[in-house]
Amino acid sequence: MTQSRKLRLGAFLMASGHHAAAWRHPASQADAGLNIAHYRELAQTAERGKLDMVFVADSPGAGLKAEPEALARSSQGAKFEPVTLWAALSQVTEHVGFVATASTTYEDPYTLARKFASLDWISGGRAAWNVVTTGADVAANFGLDRHPDHALRYERAEEFLAITKALWDTYEDDAFVRDKASGIYVDPDKVHSIEFEGAHFNVRGLLNVGRPPQGYPVIVQAGASEAGRDLAARTSEVIFTANLTLEDAQEFYADVKGRLPRFGRSPEQLLIMPGIFPVLGGSEAEAKANYEEIQSLVHPDTAWNILTRHYQGADLSAYSLDDTAPPLPTETNGNKSRLKLVTDYVEREQPTLLELYRTLATARGHRVFVGTPEQTADAIQLWFEQGAADGFNIMPPILPNCLADFVDQVVPILQRRGLFRTEYEGTTLRENLGLERPANSYALAAAEAREDAA
Amino acid sequence: MTQSRKLRLGAFLMASGHHAAAWRHPASQADAGLNIAHYRELAQTAERGKLDMVFVADSPGAGLKAEPEALARSSQGAKFEPVTLWAALSQVTEHVGFVATASTTYEDPYTLARKFASLDWISGGRAAWNVVTTGADVAANFGLDRHPDHALRYERAEEFLAITKALWDTYEDDAFVRDKASGIYVDPDKVHSIEFEGAHFNVRGLLNVGRPPQGYPVIVQAGASEAGRDLAARTSEVIFTANLTLEDAQEFYADVKGRLPRFGRSPEQLLIMPGIFPVLGGSEAEAKANYEEIQSLVHPDTAWNILTRHYQGADLSAYSLDDTAPPLPTETNGNKSRLKLVTDYVEREQPTLLELYRTLATARGHRVFVGTPEQTADAIQLWFEQGAADGFNIMPPILPNCLADFVDQVVPILQRRGLFRTEYEGTTLRENLGLERPANSYALAAAEAREDAA
Repeated sequence: MTQSRKLRLGAFLMASGHHAAAWRHPASQADAGLNIAHYRELAQTAERGKLDMVFVADSPGAGLKAEPEALARSSQGAKFEPVTLWAALSQVTEHVGFVATASTTYEDPYTLARKFASLDWISGGRAAWNVVTTGADVAANFGLDRHPDHALRYERAEEFLAITKALWDTYEDDAFVRDKASGIYVDPDKVHSIEFEGAHFNVRGLLNVGRPPQGYPVIVQAGASEAGRDLAARTSEVIFTANLTLEDAQEFYADVKGRLPRFGRSPEQLLIMPGIFPVLGGSEAEAKANYEEIQSLVHPDTAWNILTRHYQGADLSAYSLDDTAPPLPTETNGNKSRLKLVTDYVEREQPTLLELYRTLATARGHRVFVGTPEQTADAIQLWFEQGAADGFNIMPPILPNCLADFVDQVVPILQRRGLFRTEYEGTTLRENLGLERPANSYALAAAEAREDAA
Repeated sequence: MTQSRKLRLGAFLMASGHHAAAWRHPASQADAGLNIAHYRELAQTAERGKLDMVFVADSPGAGLKAEPEALARSSQGAKFEPVTLWAALSQVTEHVGFVATASTTYEDPYTLARKFASLDWISGGRAAWNVVTTGADVAANFGLDRHPDHALRYERAEEFLAITKALWDTYEDDAFVRDKASGIYVDPDKVHSIEFEGAHFNVRGLLNVGRPPQGYPVIVQAGASEAGRDLAARTSEVIFTANLTLEDAQEFYADVKGRLPRFGRSPEQLLIMPGIFPVLGGSEAEAKANYEEIQSLVHPDTAWNILTRHYQGADLSAYSLDDTAPPLPTETNGNKSRLKLVTDYVEREQPTLLELYRTLATARGHRVFVGTPEQTADAIQLWFEQGAADGFNIMPPILPNCLADFVDQVVPILQRRGLFRTEYEGTTLRENLGLERPANSYALAAAEAREDAA
């Protein structure tokens, strides 16, 4: 029986849409990256569909200037900073959660803890932090000599998370007395100073925001490397993952859920949500035509740029798009798990370079599903019931229309099948996701000390 | 004739109000610092009054834990981060500008440039940055050994501002082509990579946000030390200052405006706005009674805490509140200009310690004005017409009610006298303040090169 579990749905928003050429589609909002009305519409559409949350990816910087040909055709260079975006949209929505991506490699733990706490207060407990170590090299933007390597980034991430959680615990939940008669505003015994000395960070003192309404914002992760899986099993509450096949998804799901007991956690404390790029149509034929229409918008320059990036700058001039894709490099200082996914796909399917770039252009390695709303609901239900997913992160090909189509055409089917909510359960994102509100670590330690003494 | 100049009014918002004991007043919102509905009301009240902008002060950190007695009575420890707060409120207002304080000492220039650019886009060109070097020592929160000294902070601030402006110029205003037919999204010739090498920062590459609608957010400053005045004359567009007497304000006004020509700027490119703490009443007697009521809420512990802080921790136990205030120390690594203001006041007025703490508790050294709405309008008009101010930063003693009182009782008088607007003039903060939109430095350099060649 699956009815005891509830399906989770997020909307992964990306400017004009997830397809590399989305902005060229007649239905897309071409200036979407800096159009607040566009994002307002998307957040409100997601809320109309009772989705758990909206999510944006992010890089903390833009790095150096790219070659003119690549730069000219990219719609990804200029966009909102996620936390300011979600703070704004929290005032024009009431229920949907907001997942902001932010980097442990290029941000400061105190400033980050502060802005997420502020977002959680402003949104009434609807904030989530997608913790990333940042694969792209943006060191030059931050005055660093080089992009820290993968292992170092994960070491920093561990410390960074420990610091932010401790800072969020500065004030116990009942620290604020605010007694006008006596003039006592806060109980000093319920205010805790952190003393963190690590290999990468030293942070001492108090956070200047009260404990977030959710205790901590919901902690999300996307990394699926060994280091990423371990960090997620220890610290995450939601994983946005990329899986192309049911088997692959089941392996990942079982592996990560299997790591939880080692860290004293139970399986329902971590929700696994693969991405899915749904290309909808009233019939199968229409869905396929829609898919072909989007693909036709990819300019050959863009295709070769995408391929060259995945081949880590290798010279591909000896190849045509009809040639079988050569093996991909196996080492990277970027996103290791995403590289493995693509490497596996090339090995498994032996695609031509044309087929490979189409796969990459559509959903950057995420799963593409082309079909009717009924078939899409079936695909979602299958993975949900077969131990492959707790829900999905929906990646609409073209925005705003494809999110509205999903909400209007697929969500009602999932609701009729009893898989998805028809009303929000709670007021905070944690409540809607069925995640516990974490206790304050200082209050917990004090309570344990009292118990030991008794 | 003053009619050619327009009076500027900002609302300096501070949680429950500007008075040190504001939160204890029956009319105040005691949990204001983390109450988004409270700030929504304030921003909408300011907009109802056609005020130019709302403003919040800020410290990037909370430092270390204070002594329990001081901590217990302080309502200032937990509050929203300004940029997230203003992003949120931009969606529930249409005209009012948003001045966010942010530190050049404890923030990163790339991340700061990005968040302010994002706020300017989200608010439709209503963002301003109050550039501060941070007087309070919060080094421990950021893993630094010590709080940088005053001179070093101002050196960093100069570099920081140069970097953020260059980053905001990454994209020329017409860089985005977004031609769906050709697939050209951006004109690479109109995208500029910065190469900044300074004593404190090295920043290279592109910003990942488009050029802000206002070109740059409006640049605001508050420092009034020698270094502060020079930085302001070179780079600021608004100064929030603290002046207690007309003569003092006139000296400051003439001095700073006099520095502008040296930097190729004209007097109207920098607006000088002293703070004013208006205690209103239907009659003079009622206003005085309101003042006494607020003062009666200051707990003696708070009084001594305020005094000790201004005497930089000196032992005051030999004094009673009725003793004449001893001379203040003359050296500080904090806010030099504010210290001078208080030092001058002590020298000039020879107040008792009771009188001194009352002055500090009300408006932290800013000007207190107790009177009827008519008298308050007179006081504003006098300074505006006598070369002491371009406008005022209103510091309501108690919030939310005292801002509403000012908007409902004083603003209409200023409007009737033709001193203040009855409708917003433009859509951006710059337009409302009558400040020019700065040209893109790269576009400007290219145009000058073309002219030289012609």
